[in-house]
Amino acid sequence: MHRLILLMNCPDKKGIIAHITNFIHDRKGNIVYIDQYVDRLNETFYMRVEIEVDMSNNYFNDFRNEFDKTLGDKFKLKCEFYLKEEKPKMAVFVSKYDHCLYDILSQHKSNNLNCIIPFIISNHIDLEVVAKRFEIPYYHIQVEKGSKEKAEKIQIEILKNNKVDFIVLARYMQILSPKLVDLYKNKIINIHHSFLPAFPGAKPYHSAFKRGVKIIGATSHYVTDELDGGPIIEQDTVRVSHIHSVNDFISKGEDLERIVLIRALKLHTDRKVMIDNNKTIIFN
Amino acid sequence: MHRLILLMNCPDKKGIIAHITNFIHDRKGNIVYIDQYVDRLNETFYMRVEIEVDMSNNYFNDFRNEFDKTLGDKFKLKCEFYLKEEKPKMAVFVSKYDHCLYDILSQHKSNNLNCIIPFIISNHIDLEVVAKRFEIPYYHIQVEKGSKEKAEKIQIEILKNNKVDFIVLARYMQILSPKLVDLYKNKIINIHHSFLPAFPGAKPYHSAFKRGVKIIGATSHYVTDELDGGPIIEQDTVRVSHIHSVNDFISKGEDLERIVLIRALKLHTDRKVMIDNNKTIIFN
Amino acid sequence: MHRLILLMNCPDKKGIIAHITNFIHDRKGNIVYIDQYVDRLNETFYMRVEIEVDMSNNYFNDFRNEFDKTLGDKFKLKCEFYLKEEKPKMAVFVSKYDHCLYDILSQHKSNNLNCIIPFIISNHIDLEVVAKRFEIPYYHIQVEKGSKEKAEKIQIEILKNNKVDFIVLARYMQILSPKLVDLYKNKIINIHHSFLPAFPGAKPYHSAFKRGVKIIGATSHYVTDELDGGPIIEQDTVRVSHIHSVNDFISKGEDLERIVLIRALKLHTDRKVMIDNNKTIIFN
Amino acid sequence: MHRLILLMNCPDKKGIIAHITNFIHDRKGNIVYIDQYVDRLNETFYMRVEIEVDMSNNYFNDFRNEFDKTLGDKFKLKCEFYLKEEKPKMAVFVSKYDHCLYDILSQHKSNNLNCIIPFIISNHIDLEVVAKRFEIPYYHIQVEKGSKEKAEKIQIEILKNNKVDFIVLARYMQILSPKLVDLYKNKIINIHHSFLPAFPGAKPYHSAFKRGVKIIGATSHYVTDELDGGPIIEQDTVRVSHIHSVNDFISKGEDLERIVLIRALKLHTDRKVMIDNNKTIIFN
Repeated sequence: MHRLILLMNCPDKKGIIAHITNFIHDRKGNIVYIDQYVDRLNETFYMRVEIEVDMSNNYFNDFRNEFDKTLGDKFKLKCEFYLKEEKPKMAVFVSKYDHCLYDILSQHKSNNLNCIIPFIISNHIDLEVVAKRFEIPYYHIQVEKGSKEKAEKIQIEILKNNKVDFIVLARYMQILSPKLVDLYKNKIINIHHSFLPAFPGAKPYHSAFKRGVKIIGATSHYVTDELDGGPIIEQDTVRVSHIHSVNDFISKGEDLERIVLIRALKLHTDRKVMIDNNKTIIFN
Repeated sequence: MHRLILLMNCPDKKGIIAHITNFIHDRKGNIVYIDQYVDRLNETFYMRVEIEVDMSNNYFNDFRNEFDKTLGDKFKLKCEFYLKEEKPKMAVFVSKYDHCLYDILSQHKSNNLNCIIPFIISNHIDLEVVAKRFEIPYYHIQVEKGSKEKAEKIQIEILKNNKVDFIVLARYMQILSPKLVDLYKNKIINIHHSFLPAFPGAKPYHSAFKRGVKIIGATSHYVTDELDGGPIIEQDTVRVSHIHSVNDFISKGEDLERIVLIRALKLHTDRKVMIDNNKTIIFN
Repeated sequence: MHRLILLMNCPDKKGIIAHITNFIHDRKGNIVYIDQYVDRLNETFYMRVEIEVDMSNNYFNDFRNEFDKTLGDKFKLKCEFYLKEEKPKMAVFVSKYDHCLYDILSQHKSNNLNCIIPFIISNHIDLEVVAKRFEIPYYHIQVEKGSKEKAEKIQIEILKNNKVDFIVLARYMQILSPKLVDLYKNKIINIHHSFLPAFPGAKPYHSAFKRGVKIIGATSHYVTDELDGGPIIEQDTVRVSHIHSVNDFISKGEDLERIVLIRALKLHTDRKVMIDNNKTIIFN
Repeated sequence: MHRLILLMNCPDKKGIIAHITNFIHDRKGNIVYIDQYVDRLNETFYMRVEIEVDMSNNYFNDFRNEFDKTLGDKFKLKCEFYLKEEKPKMAVFVSKYDHCLYDILSQHKSNNLNCIIPFIISNHIDLEVVAKRFEIPYYHIQVEKGSKEKAEKIQIEILKNNKVDFIVLARYMQILSPKLVDLYKNKIINIHHSFLPAFPGAKPYHSAFKRGVKIIGATSHYVTDELDGGPIIEQDTVRVSHIHSVNDFISKGEDLERIVLIRALKLHTDRKVMIDNNKTIIFN
């Protein structure tokens, strides 16, 4: 038995669910998970389905083609098809902070992160020691004023050669060019160290400290051209008080960052995230 | 347009969802909400559906009868049918604590609780003043050693005369007889002032204080014959520390109690709770 | 035995604590609570002390005078002195929303809020019914374009006649004039329905919905001339997801608002809040 | 400048704080942190003080001796003295689960855990690979029915040879003998995978699943002879729902376990924990 995951969306219309569930039923698929959501403002229908099925020969391709032909046409339905057993390839970008990287690699080794990590890219040499600890190739690509374009060219080459499916910026402190963002649209996941939209950009812990907030947060989101403005996947918060210094904010915040980022990565690799304009739909 | 809510369960089988969604589609119902859950251990299928439909004449009764006849038979499907506009009647039982009662009556006045409150029953006279403030009839029925059976007889008469749908024990400090519990099976909601199953029974805040826990909780559950052992609807927790006295525990806990109880009541009155053996399924 | 509460601050210097604790010790005061905080950036020392003492005759005045004379001079120490048994007077300003008002009045009736509520002021007549329920005088003072100054004059007269100690804006939807803010500096408490500094100003739930956040919040703060920019007393957050509409945000948010506002009021009336520039120090 | 940390307790009495702060003031110590707590039930006074001081020659020993002689005698005061720069030695015991171990070693490498890790002990060979990754000696000491006493003898020898200060059981699935517990009284930290006192002992996630709780937890505590009954250092919780299987409980719970254990270890290594009968006082 195999597991097939379908992520679909289309303009909302009566009878969609009935048609889709019939289609699956007719092909001996057993629906083990179904969840749907209708965005009433944009009148768009979103659904995630997991199917258990005995998948011989060309089942997967036939299923996909027939699905697109019949339902795709009838409902203007767009669908992504995934086999659960096929792990996506995730490139890891880091800078000098090691807490998120350690968490990603540890969770990966503990089999809690359903992906392949072909390599780590960094603009600094510092974390090569961590990469070595976990036996992952490490590319040190310096990014300096004026050399950014050149660096990105090398990065893209490595990404393409490795057929990377998505990228995680695990506290990579550089802003990516629109070109790279466009190349991996909705496939670059960032962790921002504040409760967005409060404190976007640089030094959010310092700003939070200055404002005297009683709670700080972390936010994982897809990267778009707007700085820290992309669709939010996951957020969490932790209480602080007047006794905490900026360094305490940073220390508590780093614990949040790694938790929030790991959660976002699990949701993404488990194919539980869909994007609805600038928001995410999380089928969890 | 009316809203119809269906809560159903049956032994799990292939094709159920397709059949149900077809049935609704054929009767011009527009599914605005669908959520399902399969209990794999007991191989039972649970689903909640909300339908928007133009409901003329005998639509509701016809829908119900045909549903039971076709799907009920075919899948051994049991279904409850509710019209969203029909508010359930909730009896409130209290003792001497007023915090949950104030919250229930305030939320009710603010239209946040979709029910009718025909009366309040108490074994003490203390909270009559609160009932008067909110113009709700108040029955003072003393419960003393030996008189419990007699008191319950009066309570049941009032409940029946008012055609009460369900009961909330808003810190009613008495244990109900199996007879009354049986009469309103899965229809009596209690708030227990601990994070169950820790500290069941009397004086949980004192026990929590003694144990030196760092977090206390509150639990709202359906009442069964096992003390504080019924299906849990909602729980929440709050941090405490060594600086807090038993009275601080009580004060923080009371805030939790009212929040947790109100949430449970909203879930129940919005028909979002199903019971799966001794657990709840919350379609939220 | 009486309880005396001291809130003090001065430039940080070695030996302060020793001097203060000696002073109290010499006057037969038993320190039942002591907590201090040093703002290292501004080199300012803050301390809260609770003393149990047998307080005959002129003890309170003598204590205060001697304290100011000896320690005030020596350390440039400023100190506020409170008797725990003296309840502050709180004016309540509301508009049309009743959820915070119900909570304040209920908690007050349940003896969970250590203050006197002499009256409620509103620019609308709607909540007079709630005031009546709880037997609190209600002043309906219309605030219209052009009449704001006149309205505030009446408000201030009522505030002064009643010797009000502080004001709570329990979802009072008007911006106060700098004059009124100045008159009750650090004595006006507002509840803002977002996690500040995200979404200040009008319609924060709509903005949060549009941004697709996964957590919403509420913030209680002292009012300053900067809109939603004053010292934060308390914040809290609750999770939301794509399934929640703007109305769900509002409903979940209102529950937060009342919890956060009540907590802030308890801290303020228990004399546990000090202000350090634009931040609060909470001795809890 | 050095940092000196004092943890003290004695029977509660008037004037203690004044005497202690005077003592420190006289020895040119600058109090940078002071927090105290009085257990009113047991009439015991607890205090934690951090001092910044220019510490030449025999300052530390002299300070300690004089402190014990004057204040120790006068108030029956017991005090522990620590130099912040001296890191305690922590032995790590594990079994087969790697999530807590990875977190401890990663946080240690990131300089977030103020201790030395001289070695790891395990009753299984499985996690040797992790130890190697982080270059920590790994002792595989089998514990089988009948051989437990022998195994513990070897463990104790290693502990003593390494002058270990405290032990962390990072999901070490064995019950220690009273002898070992006694040898490291209040110096063995365990992580239990439930919200104690709910679900002590084996398989708590299975029990929580069976009970249908809506929140699960993790608890870090000092080990005593009563199974999972020792003083609680830290707890935290996370929401679950009917859709989560036992495996989901385990997965969510493991994230909690590592967070809660790390927090407890930070508190312990930062000398912020005192023990008051079977409770902890956390000066944080």
